[in-house]
Amino acid sequence: MTIDIVVMKAVNAENDARAAEVRGILDAHGVLGLNMMSSPGSGKTTLLEATFEHLGDKLRFAVVEGDVYTSLDAERIAGHGVPVVQVNTEGSCHMTAHMLLAALPHIDLSTIDVLVIENIGNLICPASFTLGEHLRIACLSTPEGPDKVEKYPRLFSVSQANLITKADLAPLLDFNIETVKDHLAKLNPAAPVMVTSATSGLGIRQWCDWLRQARDKVIQAR
Amino acid sequence: MTIDIVVMKAVNAENDARAAEVRGILDAHGVLGLNMMSSPGSGKTTLLEATFEHLGDKLRFAVVEGDVYTSLDAERIAGHGVPVVQVNTEGSCHMTAHMLLAALPHIDLSTIDVLVIENIGNLICPASFTLGEHLRIACLSTPEGPDKVEKYPRLFSVSQANLITKADLAPLLDFNIETVKDHLAKLNPAAPVMVTSATSGLGIRQWCDWLRQARDKVIQAR
Repeated sequence: MTIDIVVMKAVNAENDARAAEVRGILDAHGVLGLNMMSSPGSGKTTLLEATFEHLGDKLRFAVVEGDVYTSLDAERIAGHGVPVVQVNTEGSCHMTAHMLLAALPHIDLSTIDVLVIENIGNLICPASFTLGEHLRIACLSTPEGPDKVEKYPRLFSVSQANLITKADLAPLLDFNIETVKDHLAKLNPAAPVMVTSATSGLGIRQWCDWLRQARDKVIQAR
Repeated sequence: MTIDIVVMKAVNAENDARAAEVRGILDAHGVLGLNMMSSPGSGKTTLLEATFEHLGDKLRFAVVEGDVYTSLDAERIAGHGVPVVQVNTEGSCHMTAHMLLAALPHIDLSTIDVLVIENIGNLICPASFTLGEHLRIACLSTPEGPDKVEKYPRLFSVSQANLITKADLAPLLDFNIETVKDHLAKLNPAAPVMVTSATSGLGIRQWCDWLRQARDKVIQAR
């Protein structure tokens, strides 16, 4: 059986000028901007909660929570005593630098070290919109399946680190961690691949160590 | 701690005219159009494979596979002897009626009963673009988490049936099936909620019976 392939080209909007404004504001305050991207339900918020527990006494965080609707994740973040702004896109499937610019005045940047932007749960469009962040992190949870790196390569190729999350579930699923690590390493050789489970604690220290070192490098280089 | 909420309005493109063209073509051939929507990795293709096994001797299927890149899913479908057209959107996060119109000439509609459109893995934008289908199905897999109905309500409110997939994994996760069923039923009272697992076979017969009856109703009503 032959498979016909029909190719459709997409046009992505340009928002680099506003992203540069965001970057300038973050740099002026010595704040690292971290853009976290993944599918819905891949465990970004849970990873953040584990990160606060491990690094809360070393780095001061604030979070911009991107969601189409609700402030469920922002409420979880606020429960950790971390300043948080909820951006509701009401239908839009990615955050833009314009949205982040609108959120920044709600945060006292002089009192934080790291601004986390938890992007909309979506493996596609967030990869095409830089927000002025210094680092982009992509997460892939094991239940999503091992083919997602091939099917959604852009998100995992524009990131500075790729995290496999929910690794504790891998033995129950058709998900070979070593194979996916290889795919990620070939797709984006410059980005380390970290295997994590916020439930078991696997890889959380490695991730937090990486984040601290990456922040130091960015702040020194600005 | 207070949470600031910043609201952003999105503009969605209009493609209803082309969707009406698609609908006319499907109706002229007595073919049911079924638009399947969900997150990446929620198990749409696996559910389809189980559907072919259960209904393959009663209904003749063809599939339009929407993916940003690759033809991995199309190859799985073709392995079942089902005609398949792969639409690669190369960056776009949803299918449009224009894409489906371009795919239709590759399918012999006179030899099939049901045209399945497996939409791009995305919980957001596919809900805003009707493709001319008769029925929309939304899937939510248990590993995505129980909050996805609240966070992404539109997809589950425009559908004619909502399926909870990967139900076999629920006992391992923080996912109360009854609670999520209640949320779905309140959000979209007209759409039945079916609890399925293509791995264990749970709910597959119920889903296939529903599909057959829904098709009969649509074909009689046209």
